[in-house]
Amino acid sequence: MSDLKVGLAGLGTVGAAVLRMLARQEAEIAARTGRRIKVVAVAARDRAKDRGVDLSQVAWFDDPVALAREGEIDVFVELMGGEGDPAKAAVAAALDAGRSVVTANKALLARCGVELARRAEATGAALLFEAAVAGGIPVVKTLREAMEGNRLVRVSGILNGTCNYILTRMADEKLSFGVCLSEAQRLGYAEADPTFDIDGFDTAHKLALLTSLAFGTRVDAEAIYVEGIRQLTLEDLDAADDLGYKVKLLGVAVRTDAGIEQRVHPTMVPKHWPLAQVAGVTNAVALDGDAVDLTLVGPGAGGDATASAVVADLAEMARGARPFAFGMPAELLLPAERAPMQRHEGGYYIRLAVLNRPGTAAIIAGRMADQNISLESIVQRRPVGLKAEPETANVILITYATTEEAVRRAIAAIEAEGVVASLPQVIRIEKD
Amino acid sequence: MSDLKVGLAGLGTVGAAVLRMLARQEAEIAARTGRRIKVVAVAARDRAKDRGVDLSQVAWFDDPVALAREGEIDVFVELMGGEGDPAKAAVAAALDAGRSVVTANKALLARCGVELARRAEATGAALLFEAAVAGGIPVVKTLREAMEGNRLVRVSGILNGTCNYILTRMADEKLSFGVCLSEAQRLGYAEADPTFDIDGFDTAHKLALLTSLAFGTRVDAEAIYVEGIRQLTLEDLDAADDLGYKVKLLGVAVRTDAGIEQRVHPTMVPKHWPLAQVAGVTNAVALDGDAVDLTLVGPGAGGDATASAVVADLAEMARGARPFAFGMPAELLLPAERAPMQRHEGGYYIRLAVLNRPGTAAIIAGRMADQNISLESIVQRRPVGLKAEPETANVILITYATTEEAVRRAIAAIEAEGVVASLPQVIRIEKD
Repeated sequence: MSDLKVGLAGLGTVGAAVLRMLARQEAEIAARTGRRIKVVAVAARDRAKDRGVDLSQVAWFDDPVALAREGEIDVFVELMGGEGDPAKAAVAAALDAGRSVVTANKALLARCGVELARRAEATGAALLFEAAVAGGIPVVKTLREAMEGNRLVRVSGILNGTCNYILTRMADEKLSFGVCLSEAQRLGYAEADPTFDIDGFDTAHKLALLTSLAFGTRVDAEAIYVEGIRQLTLEDLDAADDLGYKVKLLGVAVRTDAGIEQRVHPTMVPKHWPLAQVAGVTNAVALDGDAVDLTLVGPGAGGDATASAVVADLAEMARGARPFAFGMPAELLLPAERAPMQRHEGGYYIRLAVLNRPGTAAIIAGRMADQNISLESIVQRRPVGLKAEPETANVILITYATTEEAVRRAIAAIEAEGVVASLPQVIRIEKD
Repeated sequence: MSDLKVGLAGLGTVGAAVLRMLARQEAEIAARTGRRIKVVAVAARDRAKDRGVDLSQVAWFDDPVALAREGEIDVFVELMGGEGDPAKAAVAAALDAGRSVVTANKALLARCGVELARRAEATGAALLFEAAVAGGIPVVKTLREAMEGNRLVRVSGILNGTCNYILTRMADEKLSFGVCLSEAQRLGYAEADPTFDIDGFDTAHKLALLTSLAFGTRVDAEAIYVEGIRQLTLEDLDAADDLGYKVKLLGVAVRTDAGIEQRVHPTMVPKHWPLAQVAGVTNAVALDGDAVDLTLVGPGAGGDATASAVVADLAEMARGARPFAFGMPAELLLPAERAPMQRHEGGYYIRLAVLNRPGTAAIIAGRMADQNISLESIVQRRPVGLKAEPETANVILITYATTEEAVRRAIAAIEAEGVVASLPQVIRIEKD
C-alpha cells in the first residue's frame, strides 16, 4: 500500500517528538497498519532549529493554512494550539479539502468541535483528537469504541497535570499554593501565566470533549461550572487529610434527569479511591457505566505522551478507519441539556474564618438549620502558625447531602450576621 | 445499512447479559456504528430456561458447530468456553466460512490463537477477543490500537479476580487462605474446583494473549513460568505489610535482551503503586512503554463486564473494522524467544521455618553469602499464634537484586544443613 503522507504544523516539543517517534516506530507501525507513515511536509517558524530529526527531504511551508490546503498530504496534523486562527483556518482548510486532521488542540475543539466534525463528515475526512484530552491516555478511543454496551452515568477525571502537581506537593510537603506554583513554573509544569491551568479552564475544555463522547451530546463548554485551585489553602488540605480525603481538581460530567451536569472544581475524594491516589503530573479518568466502571491512569502531558496519542491517531488513519469525531455523526449529537449544579450527595466542606467571640458557632449552626442543612460535623480549628489566642478562628463544617442553592443561601445569611472575617471556602465532597 | 446478524453460542450468565445489553443499547449502537446488531440465532442446551429476553424470533441450534457453519449470520459469538471442541470446532467452522468471531475463550486462544488468527485472515474474517482478558477493561483494543508509538517494555497485571479477592481479604481481615477461598466459593467468585484460578493458569492464559499483542510475538503460553497463591500464608502477607508492600498475583511479560520473559507468581509490590491498590475482584493492567506508562483498572469478570467487552467487539464489526487478531498479520508475528527468569532487580522475600537452635542464622547468612546474595535484612519472627518458646522460628530474608538460580542454590544449601523445618517460601519483590 502507498505511504500515508502527513503534513505537520507546529514543531515544538510535541511536534518534534512526533517526528522522532514516527521515524523510530516506522517498521512496527507498518507491520501493524499495513502502511508506512511519512511526514512529507511541515509548517513551522524556524527552519534552522535542530529538532533531532532530518527534515531535508520534507517540504517546508511558512503558512500552515497553505500546507493544509495545498500540501500533497493525506493527513494534516495540527500542533500549533490556540482556539483561533491560524489553527482553526488550517484545520478547516484541510477538512474542506477532504484531508483528515489529527489535532491536540482542546481549546479549538471545545469552541467549535461540532462545526469541525460536520466539515469533516461533509468531505469524508476524519477529525481525531486523542492528544487533546489527558495526553497519553487513550480515553477518546475508549469512549468512542469500547463502551457501546454501556449507558454512561458519569465521567470524571484529573485532567490537568499542573493542578495535580501543585495539589500533590501542597499536601505531601505542607507547602503553600504560591510556593508550589513557583516550583511548577520552575520545572516547566506551569506557564508563566498559569491562569489557564490553575483556574480550571484547561480542565473544562477537556471535560467538554469527554462529555460529548460519553453522552452523545454536542460539545458545550459554555455550560461548565468552573472553579480553580487558586483559593485552596494548606489548611483546607490538612483538614481534608484529617477527614480521610484528598483534594483534587476534578472535571465531572453526570447524566441527571434534568440533563447533563458539567463541573470543574476542587473536590474532596476518599483516600482509597483510585483518583485520590493519582499524584503529581499524572492524569486519570474514571468512566462509570451501567455495566462497567473503568479507571485509566497515565501521563497527561509532555512531548512523548502527547506524541504517543498523535501517532495512535495517525495509525488509525493508516489502518483506513474513519471514525466519527465524537463517536457518532454530528447530526445525531443531541443538544446538550444543561443541568444546573443541584443537590450534592457527598455534602460540602465549608471553612469560615470567623471572629473569635461568643455565640458565633450558634449563629453558624442556626443559619445552616434555617436552610435545612444537616451538619455531619462542626469543628473550630486554630489557624495554622498562630500561638497567641487569635482574633479569628476557623470553623470547619461538613454537611450531609444538600443543594448548592441552600449552601449559598446559608453562607450569605452567616455573612450578613457580620461574624465572617474573610471569604468562605467551599469544597464539594464525593463519597462512595 | 443492513443489520449485523449475530449467532450466539452459550447462553450462560455472559450470553444472557449480551442479549439484554444488545437489546437495551440497540438505538445507541446504531447511532454510533451506523448498523443495528441483531442476534438472529443461538445455540444452547436448555430451550426452556427464562433468560430475561424474548428468544421467540431467534433460530435455535442444538449444535454450535452447525450454527457457526450454517446459520444465516455475519458474526459468530462463542461463549461456551473450553479449550477443545465444540468451542474450537465451532470457531474454526465460522472463520473458515468467512464469518467473523467474537469470543471470551482465553483457554482456546492461549492454546491455538495464532492458528485461528491465520484461519481468520485466510477468509478475511476477524477474530476478536476483548472479553478474554481482564473482562470489561479494553486492554486488547488499547494494545492493538493505542500504543503504536511505543516500544513496549513491560506488561503486567492483576488478571484473576478470584486470587485478588482472596489476597485482599487475607490481608485486610487477617484471615487464612482456606477461609478466604471458602468465602470466595460461597460468593460465586471461585469455582468448586478452584485449581485453574488459584494456581495461576487462568492468569497465564490471559498473559499469553497480552504478550503477543504487546510484543508482536506468537502466543506462547507454554513458555510461562506459573506459580499460584495456594502456599501464601497470613504470615507472609503481614510481613509484606510491615515492609511496605502488598502481595498480588501478577502476570508479567518483560522484553529482555534474551527475548520475552513471561511469568505468573505472587509478587510484592510497593503499596503506593496503582496495582497495589487494586482490591477485591477488580482487575488491572499496567502497560509500560518507552513513551507512556498506562494503568487500566476495571471489573475483570461478571456477566455485565464481560458482555460489555463482547458488545464492544460486535460494535467494531458493525463499524466495518477488521483488525488483526493480535494486532498484525499472523505471519508477521515473531516466534517468541523465551527468556528464562533471570536476575530479579527487586530482590526476593524468603521465609524459612527453621529449627530454633544456636547458629541457625549464621548458617543461613553463610549459605546466602556463598551465592553472592546480598541481604537487605534478616529478621527472625515468632510464628503467629504461639505463646511459649516455639521449637521452630520464622526467619525472613530480604535480598537485593540477584538471580533465580542463586536463590534456588542458596536455599538448597540451607536445606542440606538440616535446619529447615518446612518448605521455604519465596516471593519476588518489585520496586520503583
